[in-house]
This record gives sequence, structure tokens and C-alpha cells, in this order.
Amino acid sequence: MQDEASVRIEIISVGNELLIGKVVNTNASWMAKRATSLGTIVRRITVISDDVDEISTAVREAIKRKPRFIITTGGLGPTFDDKTLEGLARALKQNLKVNEKALDMVKKRYEEYRKQGRMIDAELTAPRVKMATVPENAKPLHNPVGTAPAAIMNLRGTVLIALPGVPSEMEAIFEESIVPMLKKEAGGIVFFEASIFADSIMESTLAPLIDKVMHSNAYVYIKSHPKSKENTPHIELHFSTTAKDEQTAKERIGKAIAQLSALTEANSGKIRTKVIR
Amino acid sequence: MQDEASVRIEIISVGNELLIGKVVNTNASWMAKRATSLGTIVRRITVISDDVDEISTAVREAIKRKPRFIITTGGLGPTFDDKTLEGLARALKQNLKVNEKALDMVKKRYEEYRKQGRMIDAELTAPRVKMATVPENAKPLHNPVGTAPAAIMNLRGTVLIALPGVPSEMEAIFEESIVPMLKKEAGGIVFFEASIFADSIMESTLAPLIDKVMHSNAYVYIKSHPKSKENTPHIELHFSTTAKDEQTAKERIGKAIAQLSALTEANSGKIRTKVIR
Repeated sequence: MQDEASVRIEIISVGNELLIGKVVNTNASWMAKRATSLGTIVRRITVISDDVDEISTAVREAIKRKPRFIITTGGLGPTFDDKTLEGLARALKQNLKVNEKALDMVKKRYEEYRKQGRMIDAELTAPRVKMATVPENAKPLHNPVGTAPAAIMNLRGTVLIALPGVPSEMEAIFEESIVPMLKKEAGGIVFFEASIFADSIMESTLAPLIDKVMHSNAYVYIKSHPKSKENTPHIELHFSTTAKDEQTAKERIGKAIAQLSALTEANSGKIRTKVIR
Repeated sequence: MQDEASVRIEIISVGNELLIGKVVNTNASWMAKRATSLGTIVRRITVISDDVDEISTAVREAIKRKPRFIITTGGLGPTFDDKTLEGLARALKQNLKVNEKALDMVKKRYEEYRKQGRMIDAELTAPRVKMATVPENAKPLHNPVGTAPAAIMNLRGTVLIALPGVPSEMEAIFEESIVPMLKKEAGGIVFFEASIFADSIMESTLAPLIDKVMHSNAYVYIKSHPKSKENTPHIELHFSTTAKDEQTAKERIGKAIAQLSALTEANSGKIRTKVIR
């Protein structure tokens, strides 16, 4: 299969809670969906613990694969186990330094909280200064809904971005600061997907039919997802493509759906519902 | 923090659907939770696409880190994009070979389906034989609820297991074949966790208190999770430990909770609810 999208992204999720199964990694799937919809490709998601060595190793490995963007989530807060910035500094062999612009952001936020009566003082204690202590070449990114600023660094060919792990903060910063960057890099590439459902046909019978349709539709990716449904075969067929414009994308998907529907029905399968997203 | 658990596990999730954000990786969190509860440690979760190179690279990288177990999910089915076994073969420089025991499992399953009237024939077509085509040193693992057998391989010091991606199949094989292995390796180590919630105190104020309690409780890990709640601070404090027996684990957690609760209340925080799991 060929792909017109070319801007590659890696996501690194930091947090013990993800590795003990306490929290499902919805941050990664949210970002993956959003980044894909903007015409970029998420190539890898890596989940690691709140450990400086683990973070720096994972970041170094990702840099070697030369994606355009590496986005980390988690580990930017005030507690001792928020270690992402320390991990990034180690990976990049940079010193950690209080960033004045970041400190200003943190300070303003606590002053707002104090005015709102949410806390007694807005003093810049050590844990609060910690949130503004970033690798020396990093710049802070504004956090519209929380205290910890995000951080961004330009490496050779790769933009490294550290986002907080609280979903509302991660999403707000992503929308405000990252979406415009991804859009610009993707250069108008669109992603389009649609699903249909096949009943009364086994996945192993569908396999060669999918193969055939994919071979005559070079830019369309088709993946079957078996769904259990009271012991009868029920299979989602998911079609996706990236293209230079929406019309091309829709035409490609429409053609592939028509072909696979006809082949499925010719093999005693039933196309039960069509969901075009 | 010290940890009595020592059996390390890596999870590799294979599937484009995870990288486009169509599917949330609940398989990984399910396995992580289950493996942690059995006294083992999940050190890394890697999500990659249905691509032979990506799979073999990720597997080779994981092997180098020498975990006791590497568990992959996804990519064992009959379609062209089920590439995990090919990826494993490439990573291990082994040939792919039809495994007679696996073929027998696949054959029996299709014969059952035919008897149940779910399909016309139980013929061993190429896509069905594909599910029994595994790296030459792999052994099949029985799939109690689906067609594709899982595969297991003993490498030097590392057990590599490939599970299907359909959650019901993954979970059934995990319970039947993997749980006994993990239990045996963990040697009676137990994992215990509990949460309390702190109100009316900022995370940055809690930070040094958490630090203090963790320093005097070497085996207890405490992590704060800020939850947004109508703009007032509401923070989950999650306590966990691994120990040689349940009583030790519970005593450790109980002591740490008592200490942190007292410190929080001494700093104007309120411990709102206690959830012991």
C-alpha cells in the first residue's frame, strides 16, 4: 500500500499508572486520532515508567528513528515523580535551567488561583519552580488550563514536545500550539476513513477478497476487525486513505467499498450496514 | 523506591488501528493490570503498525533489554495484514513453517464451525493454513475461543509469546496459558494498591509531603493524579507496593496512608474519601 502522508510522529507516554493498568492510555489514542486526521502518520507509541533512565533511553531511541515530531505526555508536574524534563535533559546532554518565561507562566497561574480564593499564597515554592525548570534549549508552551507549561525543542530535523499528562491540559495545549504546526507540515494532506460490516462470511474467506481489492486500489488500506456477535461471524471492514484533497480521498474509498461489497456478496456474505465517517 | 517484584515483562501491541486512534489500547492495559496483580512488572508497552520491518525491529529491541517475557498482541489472523509471525521469524532469523499441531487446532475449530452450521466447508484454504504457519522454533498455544492459535518461543532467558488481538481471545489464552507461568515466575510476590482523595490542597503543596512519606516508607510508591473538579483542587493519591505476602503489603500501605493523611490535614487539606482496593 502507498501512502501520501509523510510527516512521521512518535508518541512517548510517561507514567507508572499506564504500566500497572490503572489508567488506559486514552491520551495516546486521542493524539493519534487527531494527528492522523490532520494528515500526519503516528509511527510508534512507547509507554514507559516515571524513571529518568527509561525516559532518556526511550527519547534517544526515538530521535534515532528521525521522526518529524516526538511528543511526550506526562511527568511535567510539581511532584518528585514528574521526571520527564530531567529525562529529556539527560537524553540531549543538556543542563536543566529555570526558564524565566516558564516561571512567569507558573507565577501568573498561581496568582490567578489566589485571586479566585483557591489557595492562600502564590509563593514560588521549590515544587512550583520545578515546573519551570527545563532543558536549557527548551522553550515553554502556554498551558491554557493548568499550571505546568509544556516544553518544545528543535533538534536537527525533529521537533520534541513535552505535554502534561492531565487529559484536559494535554488536549488544550495540543489544540492551541501543536495542531497549527502539524497542519503546516502536512501541507494539506487529508485522511479519510469509512467502515462497512460483513455478516455470514468468515474472516478467512474474506482475506483473499480484501487482498484483491487492495491490489487494485494502491492508496487504500483495508483492515478487517472481527467482532464477536453471538457466535456468528460479524466483521468490520475499515477503509482508510490519505490524499491531497478530500474529493480524491472519498472517491478512492467509495470505489474500494463498492468492489469489496460486490465480492463479499458474491461469496454469500451480507453487507449489513454502512457507516461512512 | 525499592521493589520486591523482579520478573520484567514487555508488551508489544501490533496494529494500525491503534496508531490512527481508531481503537484504544485496552488490551495492553488489561494485560498490564493482570500481570501487575500477579507480582510481575510491566516495563514497557510499544505500539507499532502491521509492518514486518516494524515488528521485527521492535521485537529485536525488546529482546536486547532482556525482559523475562515479551508478549505481543495482534496480527495472528488469516488476512494479508496479519504479519506478527512473519515479523517474529525475521527478528529471530528463523524460517516460517507450517506447525502440524497448530494446523490441527485450526482444522478442529473450522470443523466445529461447520457442524454448528456457521459455514459451508472446513477446507484448509491458504488463509487458514497461514494461521498455523509459525517461526520454526515456536510452539502453538491453544485458543479456547477463536481460530488463530497463539505461539510461544523460548529464547535465551526470555519467553516470547504472540497473542491474537481480539480481546476475548487474548484474554482467554492469557488466563489459560500465561497466568500459570507468571505466577510461577513471580514466586508468591503480591501487588497491593489503594487510593485516597485530597481536597482543598494544591498538588504543589502536596509534593513535599508525598516526598517525605515515600522517604520513610522505602517499599511504597505514591503517585498523585490531579483530577479536575469544577476548578477546585481534587487529587487522587495512589499507593502501591509489592511484597512477599499480603499482610506485609497491606501494613505498608496502611502506614503510608495514615502518615500522608495526617500531613495533608495538617496543611489544610481534606481527605475526602478512602478507596481501598
